[in-house]
Amino acid sequence: MTDYKIALVGFGGVNRGLAQLIAERNAQWRATLGFGLTIVGVTDLFLGSVLNRAGLDAAELVALPAEKGALARIAGGTAEAFNETVIKQSGADIIAEATFTNPVDGEPAATFCRWALESGIHVVTSNKGPIALHGAELKALARQRGVAFEYEGAVMSGTPVIRVARQALAGSGLQGFEGILNGTSNYVLTRMKEGLSFAEAVAEAQQLGYAEADPSADVEGYDVRLKVVILANELLDARLKVSDVTCSGISAISAADIAKAEATGQCWKLIGAARKTSDGSVEASVEARLLPRTHPLAGIGGAINAVSFNTELLGAVTVSGPGAGRVETAFALLSDIIALHNAGKR
Amino acid sequence: MTDYKIALVGFGGVNRGLAQLIAERNAQWRATLGFGLTIVGVTDLFLGSVLNRAGLDAAELVALPAEKGALARIAGGTAEAFNETVIKQSGADIIAEATFTNPVDGEPAATFCRWALESGIHVVTSNKGPIALHGAELKALARQRGVAFEYEGAVMSGTPVIRVARQALAGSGLQGFEGILNGTSNYVLTRMKEGLSFAEAVAEAQQLGYAEADPSADVEGYDVRLKVVILANELLDARLKVSDVTCSGISAISAADIAKAEATGQCWKLIGAARKTSDGSVEASVEARLLPRTHPLAGIGGAINAVSFNTELLGAVTVSGPGAGRVETAFALLSDIIALHNAGKR
Repeated sequence: MTDYKIALVGFGGVNRGLAQLIAERNAQWRATLGFGLTIVGVTDLFLGSVLNRAGLDAAELVALPAEKGALARIAGGTAEAFNETVIKQSGADIIAEATFTNPVDGEPAATFCRWALESGIHVVTSNKGPIALHGAELKALARQRGVAFEYEGAVMSGTPVIRVARQALAGSGLQGFEGILNGTSNYVLTRMKEGLSFAEAVAEAQQLGYAEADPSADVEGYDVRLKVVILANELLDARLKVSDVTCSGISAISAADIAKAEATGQCWKLIGAARKTSDGSVEASVEARLLPRTHPLAGIGGAINAVSFNTELLGAVTVSGPGAGRVETAFALLSDIIALHNAGKR
Repeated sequence: MTDYKIALVGFGGVNRGLAQLIAERNAQWRATLGFGLTIVGVTDLFLGSVLNRAGLDAAELVALPAEKGALARIAGGTAEAFNETVIKQSGADIIAEATFTNPVDGEPAATFCRWALESGIHVVTSNKGPIALHGAELKALARQRGVAFEYEGAVMSGTPVIRVARQALAGSGLQGFEGILNGTSNYVLTRMKEGLSFAEAVAEAQQLGYAEADPSADVEGYDVRLKVVILANELLDARLKVSDVTCSGISAISAADIAKAEATGQCWKLIGAARKTSDGSVEASVEARLLPRTHPLAGIGGAINAVSFNTELLGAVTVSGPGAGRVETAFALLSDIIALHNAGKR
């Protein structure tokens, strides 16, 4: 029986979700997955930090109110976020990094990952920023230190995509992919098809908590672009930077455009895509595309995400599921831990 | 570098497809997958058999005409199918079993698998019969002899389903699944939605080579039932026999039924499903179901297959892709070999 010590960096929805799963399922995991998790540290810029090498009470952490400095209420805790101490000194085998995504330079998450990997500690993260902006460097660092660096949740939350492509589709001759990689924009397009204007659909998405107050990262394709960079670099051995991916969104699509597409048996989708070209390079884009109704992504409605892999031997193979969510993304971190456990145990 | 010796049992479309992949891609596999395949034996009830421990020429095998006794034309070959000799005496590390599916007792494929496993030889197969009817016995035998017994292709051909559920979705709390597991019946329903009668749609499916002269295994759900047994036993730890699964097909669905469903925003699909019940047992069925248009399987048209997994932590996660095809199913055998290679190398 393995018991991994884990430190949670960032204690918003995702790592709270992971703490909740640990509180509820650790005994079950020990029986079915062959390992348990003990939380030895938590740090969060807003909540503060706490470190206990003997193990913290996951249920107590989950119950903590989302108030500034709240980690000071835990025995040994403080209102200050001692990130570097928690990462390097908690005795953690694994760091679960789930701070906010910074699409400009990936910080401070990239630094948190670097500290852990340099210290020989495995990293699992659902954060797009460090992978899209510093993926090659961090992967090389992990390889060099002989530790795992896993980030299945950075693309479609808990819906597996990197692992499906790398493991289950290994040898199929992956040539490229097309994806619906942003639930908010897909929800907006779905509701516009049902008669709402763009503005009405965005307002509804905001009410439902899908869209931010400033929805531009979702509807202008910037969020999708980070995911395309991650997938293209991971699955097609590309070395794309964010600026290499052409990017446009759905804000220019009118109700009339939607109706016209419907009338011709087509539908608009915001597609993040990449493909190998004949010269061996990789071309990638984010744009609204008109899909025929028979396209594997045409039927993906609402806030669901999907990736359709284009393979030499199988044609299109498509995976769809949730693309966001607290517990869903926490599962992605768990699935990364399962992967590193299985890689190590043989 | 590993080189596996492989014997092909049954030399119809699937194992010819595998021989073709070996002829075309062995060098590439050695570089990217870490192993190559050398064919050391072929046996087929119609074509005869050949055995050469030094290796047969894959391209020569692929070019062989589909004529009775044709394997006698290969040096050392004979018009007789010495199945047991090829399986036990060819020196094979792996048997690729791809003979016809016998839905009644799984023979002779089950015996071929048994001979190989008893001899300590890995088995990969795309054959539903042995798995649905003798799965527990054969899996136990493989475990006992310390060899691999893999059959990803028995459910959806090359589209990965067993491995996605067992690996990528491990820990997600799988509660059940619903699947479109027969391309012919789904094609028939898709064409009926487009205006054809049942008889016309079946005739068209026969012309296209999707449906057999006797289409009953496809349209009455018998093919799907075998796949439901395989998936339920594999993924939900059920111990279902074929007779435990209630089974009805699509032949009673009329054009009027289809039109009525369309008018209410629904669609008919032939669904193979299983789920854990509250008492811990597993309930499974094959039947035509009316799905709302928002159901993850509602948009799966034509001959495409799909499985939607119902999980505690992620809700529905769906995989779709081809459910048949020569090269597609050959890829499934390759994916099984990749899995056994990766399991062994660590």
